[in-house]
Amino acid sequence: ADTAEKWALDGKKVILCRTETSPEDIHGMYKAQGILTARGCMTSHAAVVARGMGKPCVCGAGDVVIDLPSKTMRIKTKVIQQGDWITIDGSSGDVMLGQIAMSTPTMTSAFHTVMSWADTVRRLKIRTNADTPHDAKIARDFGAEGIGLCRTEHMFFDPERLHHMRGMILAQTKEERQKFLDTLTPYQEEDFEQIFSVMQGLPVTIRLLDPPLHEFLPQKDEDIAGLAKDFGISVEDVHNRIQKLHESNPMLGLRGCRLAVVYPEIYEMQIRAIFKAAQKVQGKTPEIMMPLVSSASEMAYLKDLTQRIADDTGFKNFILGTMIELPRAALAAAEIAKDARFFSFGTNDLTQTTLGISRDDAGSFLPTYQHKGLWPTDPFATIDIDGVGSLVQMAVTQGRKTRPDLKIGICGEHGGDPQSITFFEEAGLDYVSCSPYRVPIARLAAAQAVINKEHAEIGKKT
Amino acid sequence: ADTAEKWALDGKKVILCRTETSPEDIHGMYKAQGILTARGCMTSHAAVVARGMGKPCVCGAGDVVIDLPSKTMRIKTKVIQQGDWITIDGSSGDVMLGQIAMSTPTMTSAFHTVMSWADTVRRLKIRTNADTPHDAKIARDFGAEGIGLCRTEHMFFDPERLHHMRGMILAQTKEERQKFLDTLTPYQEEDFEQIFSVMQGLPVTIRLLDPPLHEFLPQKDEDIAGLAKDFGISVEDVHNRIQKLHESNPMLGLRGCRLAVVYPEIYEMQIRAIFKAAQKVQGKTPEIMMPLVSSASEMAYLKDLTQRIADDTGFKNFILGTMIELPRAALAAAEIAKDARFFSFGTNDLTQTTLGISRDDAGSFLPTYQHKGLWPTDPFATIDIDGVGSLVQMAVTQGRKTRPDLKIGICGEHGGDPQSITFFEEAGLDYVSCSPYRVPIARLAAAQAVINKEHAEIGKKT
Repeated sequence: ADTAEKWALDGKKVILCRTETSPEDIHGMYKAQGILTARGCMTSHAAVVARGMGKPCVCGAGDVVIDLPSKTMRIKTKVIQQGDWITIDGSSGDVMLGQIAMSTPTMTSAFHTVMSWADTVRRLKIRTNADTPHDAKIARDFGAEGIGLCRTEHMFFDPERLHHMRGMILAQTKEERQKFLDTLTPYQEEDFEQIFSVMQGLPVTIRLLDPPLHEFLPQKDEDIAGLAKDFGISVEDVHNRIQKLHESNPMLGLRGCRLAVVYPEIYEMQIRAIFKAAQKVQGKTPEIMMPLVSSASEMAYLKDLTQRIADDTGFKNFILGTMIELPRAALAAAEIAKDARFFSFGTNDLTQTTLGISRDDAGSFLPTYQHKGLWPTDPFATIDIDGVGSLVQMAVTQGRKTRPDLKIGICGEHGGDPQSITFFEEAGLDYVSCSPYRVPIARLAAAQAVINKEHAEIGKKT
Repeated sequence: ADTAEKWALDGKKVILCRTETSPEDIHGMYKAQGILTARGCMTSHAAVVARGMGKPCVCGAGDVVIDLPSKTMRIKTKVIQQGDWITIDGSSGDVMLGQIAMSTPTMTSAFHTVMSWADTVRRLKIRTNADTPHDAKIARDFGAEGIGLCRTEHMFFDPERLHHMRGMILAQTKEERQKFLDTLTPYQEEDFEQIFSVMQGLPVTIRLLDPPLHEFLPQKDEDIAGLAKDFGISVEDVHNRIQKLHESNPMLGLRGCRLAVVYPEIYEMQIRAIFKAAQKVQGKTPEIMMPLVSSASEMAYLKDLTQRIADDTGFKNFILGTMIELPRAALAAAEIAKDARFFSFGTNDLTQTTLGISRDDAGSFLPTYQHKGLWPTDPFATIDIDGVGSLVQMAVTQGRKTRPDLKIGICGEHGGDPQSITFFEEAGLDYVSCSPYRVPIARLAAAQAVINKEHAEIGKKT
């Protein structure tokens, strides 16, 4: 990522090639023309981030073997050196040797006319997944009617903030942790204030910290040594902390709202920042979304935590809700809805857990499944209606039994997939949320879903 | 593990202390008096294997930091050297400095009398999880009425077999893979024949290969170099293969029946070996169990694969069934039952996926959840009735709708937990399967479940 950034600043066009990307690669991804990874699929970090940035990405190209020390990449018998030209096609997944001629798409007035037709027909609201004012702006221009998912983790990767974040993670006591969190509060406040401003009048759903803490710590020995020096602790202590945080299956580990059970002060900081920002942007009613909830008792705990800060600050104008992204949450929807005013299906994680398939590892078998006809489509691209869909339907029905005005949306990658949107229309969701560049297709698909339903009903009558 | 083995052979009593154990540690676990790990929980490798061996194990002691190079273990401020005395209590999880006086339990005739009373009352059959003739024998002596789970992966860790297994994994072509599998066939055949002989007349359920292939490859550089030499390939090629097999979340990766979709020849070898062994042990009807099934199309594919070998060998006296260990499988039970004659709930994995909790990583947050009252019990010890239990109930009902004589059991760790057994009685299962040393408690609990149900019914009537 560092090289990609440097070369791009030197005026070169770069495709960032990695075995897989992590949040630490963001600066390189931002400067690259496109991204190529050996591992992962449709909903991996590389694909999700690239889609959000509107960049082409080929993800999970299993034949690619990257050798970092020699700065080469091998694809079967071909060896590509750093500096060689390649061209990638994010739609087909093709990786081509050399520089292929390309043309830029234009948006004509016909496009806007079709979109306006779609808007008069559709019932589903279309929101966007956006973590920055920049993305929020793009999405608004594409017609997004709110933010359905504002991830807060990306806000901590700026070098200065990362320093405090790491200090917080390395802290030995709650007091020490609190000190670093206090330093982070004004940054978070500013993030939220800017996003609220861009989205003025439109709803904004903020998801509290979701990834495991080890994602914020360095992996290379030199970086670990640097970190130890920065905080005046021994290299051994940093290694021990990293070893303690290491997880066999990070997808299923200490993340999401579990962080708030173990370290309540992290979410408390974020909630305080949201309240402060909302007070500055007039009339803003932030929607606070809890990730990875699995039970009613967890939701009650999170509601209490939020309420304590509301009581403390006197700010009451917020809406508390939860993601439904674990089978357990879908099964307990009736109970969870007692303390949640909205549900947002995280269909990426819900697909991973319901099917028992890690999106980052699916590349080694999913293509064979599709080839042999065992999965009709990629379940991370188009929702698995019979499995994941039945949990969605169950949660919608049960959740609304408890709370008839429960607002229900979806913020997984399926929110931008036409076939999945048809299902969400049938399931009675209120909105879908997708990455900014997919907003137009979502608007169109939502309208087509209504028309198809009407046609089917006319068909039944005649 | 090597040191534990060596010291034990020198006549010393050893407690094997590891950050976590893997199948490569088996020889050391076998020779140790007990096992202590820093990571994991109730259903981690260390705990499951130790339980099967009847050894005490403290698993997931989060404060333990093991420093391999210096052969020391730090627990908070105490530093313990290799060779120091410690004592562990597998029931309480206590780790004590020094050598504590202990006494050995004895089984009196009163014990056998109580067991015989239990047997006259209980409805549930009690089977055992056993992978070796040795374990099967112990379980029979404890009163097990069959094997509910015979895992086949442990059969490949003997050094000679491991060599062929690794050759198979490193193979570049199907032909090369087949060559190594052919070498493994007689070993497998002998394994099965021995187990069938010990369990004569009683049912034996064999689960085909389940773990990801990378579990069979070495991790240390010296071992990798040795492997490259053994097979006459370059160290780089071995590294590349290991890199390609690496997974971010192995629990949710290329494992279980997915292996049979990508490499059908592996399961074909195992099925052939089962058929050959069954032909030698008169009257044996083996039950073949497919792991990690998630859909009806997958089950149909696996049935076809098994049927092809049945047609080829002329052996027809087998029963094909599946584990139900993914939420997707429970949701699709009605369809899956078309091609499966039995279900066995793998409640370890079903708990991991339904709750989104990796059993190996739960140690960092589950204790806090229990402390704060957010989970009433450890969901890996006692089944989560509201979540996992509702999927079990759904699958039982739907499966029997399709196939009224569907045989249904459970082979997760919950099979040996009294509270969970009460639930399985209510849910109408046919049998529970647990590790050999838990068979007596399962017999008792199954009887108590019946008595409690009768009392509750009498209570309702009066």
